[in-house]
This record gives sequence, structure tokens and C-alpha cells, in this order.
Amino acid sequence: MGRAGFGHRVEGLHAVAEAVSSSRVRTLYVERGRADRHEVVGLIEDVENAGGVVRTVDDVRTIAETTAPQGVVADCEPIRYSTLERLVEMTVPAAVLVVDRLQDPHNLGAVARSAVAAGVPGLVVSDRRAAPLSAAAFKAAAGALEHLAVAVVGSIADALSRLSGLGLWTVGLEGAGDRSLFGLELLAEPVALVVGGEGRGLSRLVGERVDVRAHIPMSGPVESLNASVAAALAVFELARVRDSQGSRRGDSNP
Amino acid sequence: MGRAGFGHRVEGLHAVAEAVSSSRVRTLYVERGRADRHEVVGLIEDVENAGGVVRTVDDVRTIAETTAPQGVVADCEPIRYSTLERLVEMTVPAAVLVVDRLQDPHNLGAVARSAVAAGVPGLVVSDRRAAPLSAAAFKAAAGALEHLAVAVVGSIADALSRLSGLGLWTVGLEGAGDRSLFGLELLAEPVALVVGGEGRGLSRLVGERVDVRAHIPMSGPVESLNASVAAALAVFELARVRDSQGSRRGDSNP
Repeated sequence: MGRAGFGHRVEGLHAVAEAVSSSRVRTLYVERGRADRHEVVGLIEDVENAGGVVRTVDDVRTIAETTAPQGVVADCEPIRYSTLERLVEMTVPAAVLVVDRLQDPHNLGAVARSAVAAGVPGLVVSDRRAAPLSAAAFKAAAGALEHLAVAVVGSIADALSRLSGLGLWTVGLEGAGDRSLFGLELLAEPVALVVGGEGRGLSRLVGERVDVRAHIPMSGPVESLNASVAAALAVFELARVRDSQGSRRGDSNP
Repeated sequence: MGRAGFGHRVEGLHAVAEAVSSSRVRTLYVERGRADRHEVVGLIEDVENAGGVVRTVDDVRTIAETTAPQGVVADCEPIRYSTLERLVEMTVPAAVLVVDRLQDPHNLGAVARSAVAAGVPGLVVSDRRAAPLSAAAFKAAAGALEHLAVAVVGSIADALSRLSGLGLWTVGLEGAGDRSLFGLELLAEPVALVVGGEGRGLSRLVGERVDVRAHIPMSGPVESLNASVAAALAVFELARVRDSQGSRRGDSNP
């Protein structure tokens, strides 16, 4: 993953439409058989109006990185990486999502989509043993990666130390965590939520570094959840705790 | 999808281990290069002790339906389909998850995993325009499909009418739903949660048939969530509402 930025390549109707809205598309490749479809015509117009190039190709899949590009592939101006300091300043109180060892770009895209939907605008990813912010991730994110600030770090454990230094609590999701994620009042404070990858969860070092290890209460005979599901439950729990605290504060100051 | 049952084929270490635990494996195919790995040795022993057949093959991928079978493929005694009546009797109050038009078997598997984890033991799926309960679904479910009762129906809309007749409220998840899913007290009653498929959500007929349309509160510039994420938020919300009602009832009867 290049340090300069990410999102050079975007594929699929929804993801390309969002990249067009962000005025990032330099070259739009459109499959001949789909060029007259309503939604594609709109994309072509927008790209041309913004000074981009549109090329028609016989089969867009020959240049696509994903398996179902839906007739559109875009080469884009990359989105610049953010810094941890900037992520922390995006909301008050700060809310950052950190993903440790997530390896499937579809899961990464789904995580980005959930984070944006829940109002968590900053994501920290590792550049080692982690899914790249590839065309597949952009497709699964359905446009959400256009709205997310992303910081890439060499070490998640070091990033957590720096986030602590910036005044955030760090909360790691772990099956054996001693606190329940649900109703965790700490989520109303400035916080970094840390979720692990498929199968293996948080790395040992990261598990030791977080301030709080929280588990998702489960009742059935299942050991763990899909990584993107766990991340979604975490960011929406943060949104809910903050919403209910806000309501309570509102009640006390009518 | 055959009416008699599902889960004839299971692939991947975790999913195969759970099928072995369920004593369903008739023939276990093991890749030669992996046959002496600790976790595979245990599976071979268990299958042979249960009277099943073990075959060693050079490359298990030549017979696998999934792309990463992790060296093990199992042909299994199918799991019998359940009836709506039986699903309704599994918990008190009843809790059933209905999926409408979900087309990706990975999403279906992740949904099954979330349902079991949240204590929702019954799933209703359609046999039309829907993901099959394939080896890919079993792999994504990481064993959860062994613990779930599944009813297959020709029409989701008709199934909802029958569930209503059995005394359940039907709650459909929809972006434009007029109630918030979070804190929806109806979830403490006997209920069927209905989630739609990728991209298009509930079909019109199903949207009209449900008693309540509920939305997931979203704050960011995202139109919808990944289908398996939305389903997970729904089943865990049901668990949470029931848990808090149970606690409250407990408080009033100390």
C-alpha cells in the first residue's frame, strides 16, 4: 500500500458513482454494452464535465481487479492518507476505529461502510499482513471509503500508544474480554475501538496494549463472529452510548 | 436446494470439525500433504470411530466447491429442514430470523453465525432467487449452521402470514422504516425479524406484509449497510432488549 494515498482504482457502479461525486476520476472505462444505461450515462457526463477521460472497452473485465465490476472501472486521483492526530480531531469526543490483522478486503470494505454509517469517521489500518484498500475493498464499502479518513501505520501496537498519548481510551474487542461491550460507558469518552482479524482476533501485543478488553455477549454455541460483524456491533454500540448520554444530558438541561 | 435437507457438502477446517461433532460426516476427503497435521489427525480419528470413510487425495481443491477448503472436504448426512411451527417453538418468546433475497452464500453464512451467537435459533430462507445453503455458506458460518434450525419456503410473504398466524409479530428492516430498531420493545414479544438482500433490501410484497418497518439509525453519508451486518445488528438488538426486560422483571421480583 503506497504511503501517498489509496483508492487509485475503483470498480462497480456504486463505488464508481461515489468516486465521481468526489471528483477523483481521471479515466473512466465503460463497457460498450453498458454505455447507454441510464446510470452509466450519468457517470460519463459527470466525468467529462469534470475534465476526466472516458474510454469505451469491449469487456471491462479484462482490465478489472474485481470479479464483477458491473461495466465500469475508474482510475482515480488517490485519497491522501490522514494522520492519527487528524483522525482524533474529527469528532468531539474523538472516535477512531482501529483494525488489527484484517486480511479480507471485502471485510475491510464492510467495516468502512459500518464505521461511516455509525458516525465513526476515522480508520487506522496496518500496512503489514493486512488487507489492502484495493478495488475489492472499495466495492464492498459501497462508497463509504470516500467519506472516511484513513491513517496507515507500521505497527498497530505503536499506534495505540500514540492514541493514548493523544488522550484516547483504547478498547479492544476480544472473546475473553472481561467487560461487556454493550452499555460500556467508556464509549462516551474519547476512544479508539480496536477489532481483530478473521479467526485469530487481536494480536498478543495489541491485546496487552489496550486499556479495556470488551466482549460481545453471545448466548449460542459459537466461538466468534465474522470480523466485519464484530466491528459493526462495536461502532454502533459507540453511537448508541453517545446518543443515550446526549439524551440524558439533554434531559437534565431542558 | 433439495427439500429433504441441506449441508451435504462441508469444506474448511472449522466447518468440517463442527460437522464431525454433529456425527454427520460419511466420507472425509483429506489432502495428502495435510493428513498429519494435528487438527486433521483428530478429524480422521473421529470420522473413523463414527463409522465414516476417510479418503486421501492429492489435491482436495480438485473436488472442492469452495476456493480455500484448507485440505478437508466432507460429504455428509444432510441436516433435515425444519417447519415454521417447529422454529416458533424453539424459544419462549419465539425468535425467528427471516432472510428475503439474500444472494451471497458468504453473507448467508455470516448471518447464520450471528443468529446462533445472539441466541436466535431459527432461520427462514426462500428456495427462489436466494443463496443456497452451499459449502461456501457452511464455511462462512464457521459451524453455526450445525446449530440452527432452518425452514425453506417458496414465498417469504406467505411465510410471514403463517408466522403471524402462529402469534408472532413481524418486524422488517428497511432504511425508510418509521421506527428505530434500537430499543424497539416489540422485540421482547414473540417476533420474526425480516432482513433483505444485498443492495435492494426487502421485496415490495414483503415490505407491505410486515407489521413494523424498523430502520437502523445511521448518521453518516451511507445509504445502507452490508446485509449480514444489518442482520447482525437486528438479532443482537433482540438479544439486548430481551436481556434488559429480563433484568427488569428480575428487579421487580427480587
